[in-house]
Amino acid sequence: MEMARIGATPKGGVCRLALTDLDRAGRDLFVRWCQEAGCEIRIDQLGNIFARRPGRDNSKPPVMTGSHLDTQPTGGKFDGCYGVMAGLEVVRALNDHACETEAPVEISVWTNEEGCRFAPGMTASGAFSGKFSVDFALSRADSDGVTLGQALKKIGYDGAEPVGRPVGAFFEAHIEQGPVLERERKTIGVVTSAQGQRWYEIKWIGMESHAGTTPMEGRRDALVGAALLISEARRIGMRPDGRATVGVIESRPQSRNTIPGSVFMTLDLRHPLEAELTRMDEAMRAAAARIAAEHHLEVQIDQIWYFPPTSFDQKCVDSVRNAAAKNGMSHMDIVSGAGHDACYLARVAPTAIIFVPCKGGISHNELEEARKEDVADGCQVLLQAIIERANAA
Amino acid sequence: MEMARIGATPKGGVCRLALTDLDRAGRDLFVRWCQEAGCEIRIDQLGNIFARRPGRDNSKPPVMTGSHLDTQPTGGKFDGCYGVMAGLEVVRALNDHACETEAPVEISVWTNEEGCRFAPGMTASGAFSGKFSVDFALSRADSDGVTLGQALKKIGYDGAEPVGRPVGAFFEAHIEQGPVLERERKTIGVVTSAQGQRWYEIKWIGMESHAGTTPMEGRRDALVGAALLISEARRIGMRPDGRATVGVIESRPQSRNTIPGSVFMTLDLRHPLEAELTRMDEAMRAAAARIAAEHHLEVQIDQIWYFPPTSFDQKCVDSVRNAAAKNGMSHMDIVSGAGHDACYLARVAPTAIIFVPCKGGISHNELEEARKEDVADGCQVLLQAIIERANAA
Repeated sequence: MEMARIGATPKGGVCRLALTDLDRAGRDLFVRWCQEAGCEIRIDQLGNIFARRPGRDNSKPPVMTGSHLDTQPTGGKFDGCYGVMAGLEVVRALNDHACETEAPVEISVWTNEEGCRFAPGMTASGAFSGKFSVDFALSRADSDGVTLGQALKKIGYDGAEPVGRPVGAFFEAHIEQGPVLERERKTIGVVTSAQGQRWYEIKWIGMESHAGTTPMEGRRDALVGAALLISEARRIGMRPDGRATVGVIESRPQSRNTIPGSVFMTLDLRHPLEAELTRMDEAMRAAAARIAAEHHLEVQIDQIWYFPPTSFDQKCVDSVRNAAAKNGMSHMDIVSGAGHDACYLARVAPTAIIFVPCKGGISHNELEEARKEDVADGCQVLLQAIIERANAA
Repeated sequence: MEMARIGATPKGGVCRLALTDLDRAGRDLFVRWCQEAGCEIRIDQLGNIFARRPGRDNSKPPVMTGSHLDTQPTGGKFDGCYGVMAGLEVVRALNDHACETEAPVEISVWTNEEGCRFAPGMTASGAFSGKFSVDFALSRADSDGVTLGQALKKIGYDGAEPVGRPVGAFFEAHIEQGPVLERERKTIGVVTSAQGQRWYEIKWIGMESHAGTTPMEGRRDALVGAALLISEARRIGMRPDGRATVGVIESRPQSRNTIPGSVFMTLDLRHPLEAELTRMDEAMRAAAARIAAEHHLEVQIDQIWYFPPTSFDQKCVDSVRNAAAKNGMSHMDIVSGAGHDACYLARVAPTAIIFVPCKGGISHNELEEARKEDVADGCQVLLQAIIERANAA
């Protein structure tokens, strides 16, 4: 709640965009708290912050946990910040109980996760795991032309450490950002995988003509084509763990009595299994081709982005599930529908995510809320999972 | 073609917006031609022009024909202008053959038919038939705040004649503005009726949420609701002479990975039979309610405009059909999908419309085109229909 004061909005949310002065203030507060907890701070070339609590064997790669401190423009108190604060709480709890771990424990703050100031999001965790080069990440520019590198320098978080190194295990605590845990009345979501995503831009081309004089049979109505695909996409998404969303639609010429001649739409398909996601892609393309032929339309489908499904590490996932079970907490296996820094970390380290419920599943919204007991339970699970992995052979 | 030079566009179309200097130039040319043909000119308070060729009994109400000289911003050479020129051709032909009619014959030019400068369209024929008051018509303003009355005065067409008086019969020659005659290879469309129109504004209200984390089952996707209604509307329009068109769609918040929370759309339903149009309205409302219930959406349906179906006068329609048949011209009965000045005139006088084909059914477009032989045949039919009605008891 103290961190949430930095960038607090009148509606109870937080606006703390990546690498702004507010982001610096949040980072400074986090660093101070970690130093007070006895941690050693390191900053890498992308401004990722690592707060290290030594273990018995400091030659071992650290067990790491963390998330991000940047928010959406009308974001909430929990998205990202919870995972960082949970890491701090784990370190404090280890201190309080003078509990020594075999491997060191580190808390990480990943730069520019949200991607709303510098696209794409998860920039710095992506670079840490080798998805992007450091130069690529530094050269991302905001809408004013300021690069990520310039913004880092301006707030004094352009560190010296190289980006990327061995990590023994990575855990991220996060609010679910969806309604499932609340609906199922479970406190802990054991995240087994994250959805793969395919993003498309689809253009329908028909023929503008007069709404009154053009008989229905001869029409080439681009909006009818788009509408039929929206409805087909929904059908294609309606499989276990599937998602299909048309978020953007633009029709031309936007005249009440003219048949639309062209329509642009986006499509977002998600599934945690590669093979299913491929089947969804195929079904969507087949449906679009069938609709186009039936309605004398041309359709262009461009896949503009692909994020493969992530399967989390069996041992890390088990550590999370075991911790929840040992504490008698209600829990369930769940798939992450959103992308998280942990999805990139999973490429280079054994990784898992712990979800806690958020009210109404609402996130990326100033109304975002989570219950104190739930976030505490999430910290408890995180603590035990970290101890288990840090002490594993 | 000479009239089409006034406001000619580089792409071969015409831009002669109502009551501009170009409209004045077109009107002046028409008036000069009519005077040269021996007509007496009268201008009413809404700038409607009447060119009168006396009959044997000038106490009889005139048989009138005409259309409009204003165009769309990227309009063609034929929409409106053809009906005015056809009237002039009829008068010239009557003169050439020294043919006297019992009732006088008048050519009319109706002010602001297109409605693109001053809304609504068919303003002055509407006022002539008592649909609008003269004051209402004069007070319509363009996007610069200039009223129709001010614009009339500026071009010197603010006449003294009162608006509206008895008309013995009214004929309008017009390009079809649709593809039916061309497809059926007919030269003359005997227009038996004009479609009634219902215009709606429809709003769908759902709930914005995350495209990845929100399962398909719980979604309240406003765009899915709109898409299903677009597809249902098409089905509802697919009856003989029916039309259903969604011309405008606006979705919020237009983000690729956010489920749309609200959608605005328009709907244009048309049918030449009142009872069928009512059934279409009922079917549409039932479909919208069913979709809303199934997808947990709220739907608001406002009918913002209604133009009742027009049945044209049996005798006038017969005169058109007989004339086409006598000349051995291919012809068919047809319904007008668009509104025309004749639709208002039909409220106060026996009325019919004669259609001729236009290339590809394209209209309201600079590419608008009609074949010389077809427009000549239309004039021939108009001439004979006018003679028949002007000499009827």
